Amino acid sequence: MGLFSSPAKVYKPAADVDLGPGSDEFYISPNVKAPRVAGLLVKIFVWILEMPIVGQIVLYILKKDNLINKLVSDADIPEPPLFTATHSWEDIPEQNVRLIKPDLSAAERVQEAAGCLPARLEATLAAGAASSGLKRWTIRDFADAYSSGETTPVQVATRFLAAVKESSGPDLNMAFFISCDPEDVMRQAEESTRRYQRGAALSALDGVLVAVKDEMDCVPYPTTGGTRWLAAARRCEADAACVAQLRACGAVLAGKANMHELGAGTSGINPQHGSARNPYNSNKIAGGSSSGSAAVVSAGLCPVALGVDGGGSVRMPAALCGIVGFKPTAGRLSNAGVLPLNWTVGMPGILAGTVEDALLAYSAIVDQSQPSYLRPELNLPQLKSTLSMSNIKLAKYAKWFNDSAEDIRSCCDKALKTLQAHYGWQTVDVTIPEIEEMRLAHYVTIGSECTTSLAKYLDKLKRSEIGWDARVALSVYGSFSSRAYLNSQRLRNRQMYFHKEIFKTADVIVSPMTGVTAYTLQDDAFNTGELDYINGAALVRYSIAGNFLGLPAITVMVGHDKGGLPIGLQFIGRPWSEATLLHIAFAMQEACAKGHKKPAVFYDLLKKE
Amino acid sequence: MGLFSSPAKVYKPAADVDLGPGSDEFYISPNVKAPRVAGLLVKIFVWILEMPIVGQIVLYILKKDNLINKLVSDADIPEPPLFTATHSWEDIPEQNVRLIKPDLSAAERVQEAAGCLPARLEATLAAGAASSGLKRWTIRDFADAYSSGETTPVQVATRFLAAVKESSGPDLNMAFFISCDPEDVMRQAEESTRRYQRGAALSALDGVLVAVKDEMDCVPYPTTGGTRWLAAARRCEADAACVAQLRACGAVLAGKANMHELGAGTSGINPQHGSARNPYNSNKIAGGSSSGSAAVVSAGLCPVALGVDGGGSVRMPAALCGIVGFKPTAGRLSNAGVLPLNWTVGMPGILAGTVEDALLAYSAIVDQSQPSYLRPELNLPQLKSTLSMSNIKLAKYAKWFNDSAEDIRSCCDKALKTLQAHYGWQTVDVTIPEIEEMRLAHYVTIGSECTTSLAKYLDKLKRSEIGWDARVALSVYGSFSSRAYLNSQRLRNRQMYFHKEIFKTADVIVSPMTGVTAYTLQDDAFNTGELDYINGAALVRYSIAGNFLGLPAITVMVGHDKGGLPIGLQFIGRPWSEATLLHIAFAMQEACAKGHKKPAVFYDLLKKE
Repeated sequence: MGLFSSPAKVYKPAADVDLGPGSDEFYISPNVKAPRVAGLLVKIFVWILEMPIVGQIVLYILKKDNLINKLVSDADIPEPPLFTATHSWEDIPEQNVRLIKPDLSAAERVQEAAGCLPARLEATLAAGAASSGLKRWTIRDFADAYSSGETTPVQVATRFLAAVKESSGPDLNMAFFISCDPEDVMRQAEESTRRYQRGAALSALDGVLVAVKDEMDCVPYPTTGGTRWLAAARRCEADAACVAQLRACGAVLAGKANMHELGAGTSGINPQHGSARNPYNSNKIAGGSSSGSAAVVSAGLCPVALGVDGGGSVRMPAALCGIVGFKPTAGRLSNAGVLPLNWTVGMPGILAGTVEDALLAYSAIVDQSQPSYLRPELNLPQLKSTLSMSNIKLAKYAKWFNDSAEDIRSCCDKALKTLQAHYGWQTVDVTIPEIEEMRLAHYVTIGSECTTSLAKYLDKLKRSEIGWDARVALSVYGSFSSRAYLNSQRLRNRQMYFHKEIFKTADVIVSPMTGVTAYTLQDDAFNTGELDYINGAALVRYSIAGNFLGLPAITVMVGHDKGGLPIGLQFIGRPWSEATLLHIAFAMQEACAKGHKKPAVFYDLLKKE
Repeated sequence: MGLFSSPAKVYKPAADVDLGPGSDEFYISPNVKAPRVAGLLVKIFVWILEMPIVGQIVLYILKKDNLINKLVSDADIPEPPLFTATHSWEDIPEQNVRLIKPDLSAAERVQEAAGCLPARLEATLAAGAASSGLKRWTIRDFADAYSSGETTPVQVATRFLAAVKESSGPDLNMAFFISCDPEDVMRQAEESTRRYQRGAALSALDGVLVAVKDEMDCVPYPTTGGTRWLAAARRCEADAACVAQLRACGAVLAGKANMHELGAGTSGINPQHGSARNPYNSNKIAGGSSSGSAAVVSAGLCPVALGVDGGGSVRMPAALCGIVGFKPTAGRLSNAGVLPLNWTVGMPGILAGTVEDALLAYSAIVDQSQPSYLRPELNLPQLKSTLSMSNIKLAKYAKWFNDSAEDIRSCCDKALKTLQAHYGWQTVDVTIPEIEEMRLAHYVTIGSECTTSLAKYLDKLKRSEIGWDARVALSVYGSFSSRAYLNSQRLRNRQMYFHKEIFKTADVIVSPMTGVTAYTLQDDAFNTGELDYINGAALVRYSIAGNFLGLPAITVMVGHDKGGLPIGLQFIGRPWSEATLLHIAFAMQEACAKGHKKPAVFYDLLKKE
């Protein structure tokens, strides 16, 4: 407690909290009081924050206004801390899965996953979607076209590079990539083409373009983390573990996708490398921090991209750009070669045009090197038998579900009803307590870890090398006490308990992916970034459990708002239940595929000439 | 970095550090600049520290002078954080052990342990010791005397209560106990006596007196944590898990032993409940924080006591009082019912007159309820075959080993040589890097966790209810940033790596237990406590790895300094290797038993009348 303190929250023991639909737990909608700030005002704000003493007092008031003191730092929490989101082995019985042997190579796993896909004739709903305007080529489409000789990786790469050039030009200015080396792309495409010519393709991913968020190492590119300075301070010397596995499957690594500077924001507005635009409407944000990864997949440039998800950073831009965003269980993918912007909440994730492609990419990049008591064996979902999945229960917390824009609420409601109607699955009403408290605890956690991890660079850096909005974030991040950090981990422990209790009654938790759809990119933000905590809180409202608790989660496009912008629905699963989650997401995709609009900026890399 | 910052340490990757005897790693002896402060000066210091802004600046300078900023908070550390000291299952091959089935009761385990003890005729060295003045009655002596009818638990309890009364009187003023209820002790002794009369003793511990540090719950006593206020804020409603197991074995719980206030100091000087005095010389400290537990065992009042060890708090006072102090692997004993003064470094420990009694108590209180992948099965050492233990390797870091008072260094050296001569075991010279860095990281960790855990009480408390020296500790503890905390955990990760590497070449690490022997209790400290960071750092110099890394560790008395004060030698073991550690400690005890002096304050509870 200190100056300006308000009475701190006294939490009751987690086991005494009612998680049923009739619970009297109060739902706090994010109580963000800061107005949107951009341009010169951001600069003035940074100058104040970076002043000794005055800056600290302003930060204190900011944190108090955002209830961080009341709900986290000064709160009375009965539980001890839980420091990580990793899960030990659990025996999850799952329906319709193929068990994968631990010693298969990445390419062999991809072929196992390819065997799980529905036959083309069965994919009637997806085929129906094509007639309504949106046909996304899948990995299988590319592999078939390469195998049949209809086209070659070189031809596709050539079209891709032309599209990248066009989209980066002054007319579109999409800012998809931070770096893309045409020679490196062509060299890989040529090697892949020769493999197909020899009949020696490595896997279904051979010759398939995959973009990589510029937060993961991928030779020969520097890893910028969205900054102008990090690549010089930290060399990229080898592929990240996930990237290396994709390369071993023959994938063509297509370049380093744009991102929010240091992942320290949700809009994807990046004053250093340009702001990735939303392919559905280039006046709108792509979301972030994996902005470029979401946008390139949405625009048809790659069927799959890699991102990193520390606070919704894969799933949220995926929802805003109308694609699939998939973050597996913490520990399922290796963090090796990912910038350590935090230690306990982030991990790689997959952005894909379809659930089928998310499955293929997932099967390639899973980390099978950990001992088995740290993670169970790998199940892949037999998507060809998703129709027969029975007794799936979907937990829904109505107050939270409905705390979103009108269009999102009604669209997600409708999608959920369609899903239930198609498959006969049940919804279970529950209460998930302390969601805003969890968001704040996660914020303290990721902020503390980010500044601690980057300190060795930041201490040597001229502040002017950092973007204005990132400087605001770093000032706040660096201000937390050890008590705030420890109390955040106590809230993590509570939430882990709550979620495990809820998973006793349901297979997944269902929610919208975001509280708002993609909002407008304003001119005053391009050079300074912007501070828009109200939209920011709405964007991450449904993301946090995936990161803070390490739960697997996936988003699927289920429709559009009145302006035609995409809306995503999210499923959050039990630890290690990726197969069930992919089944459910696939069912949702099939039930909702009709009527999806095509992005305004869209490239057809397999079109017949 | 900030005001007054000095260049922060840049750590090289842990794997690049040379751990061999010729390493050029620099050994930093604690660089503590604060002079001893007591009496009015402590009060003035507290007033300054608790002033807004001024207090924070003073704290900043203090931390800088003690190198916390340079070596921890601002340092550049390559490793990610490791947040806990718990160890997953490891397959440790151990010699001469008895494997204990997981479903045995506490009393059954004690009987298994009793079967591991050497026959009396074999215990020649210990018997020899009796002739030189010191004969400590063991648990087996009590059990035999009760079984044979030579005496009864009621007779022993009566003597015990008389001794407690005498030692608490104005002449001796030993301050052993914070509370001791004669009626409760007699009631338990009567029940035990009836069991022996029926021939239905529960175990070898039946009727044996055991004192419990006032940091662990033990019905019917309040749990004060050495304070005047905590028992009112937090009710003791049931026995701590360890206490309940002892009770189930028939032990007579003898009262709540004195301790340093909140465990926040190493001297055992407690202005609230009196300062426990050292039975070897009542003008000297008993050490802390488990001061009373060490002193009652040393004085012959109980063969065994329980303590809690968060930073050497069991082992260090045990060494100062000339007894055995044993802290098992983190996770081996339950923390249930222990005051949560921290979350990641503390756990119960055993104070005993002999290694045999440490073994019996240990076998009673182990936590067998955890799943087996969290801890391996329980091995008990066959102490009767310790003589045949072969190929034991003892790692010694000479610079650290020798950083102690002259008498300690020569006594410990001699003991080690005696051990080698008796058993033919080898010493391996190693370098353990960054020991002072680890001490500071542990200090940041335990301090941050202590204030966070106690905050809910402290926020409501009048400062005047807390002792002056504890207020200094709490001011420092509450001042750490999340970055300092996280960097401390990165240093934990390095140390875990270093120690695991060293354990590839040796079974245990050997060191003195303390850098100084018990120092003088000064009159000016009784009311305010004292700040003596130089002696404090010397007392904990060898303790930290046991807590920060959760390693099992044990101290055995190996001799006396010129003033007749006890000197302890410590062995630190691999995770889960308690059986080997007890073997080695037993061997050391047997090799060194001759010439041990008797404490000046000593009670013979089994004497023939």
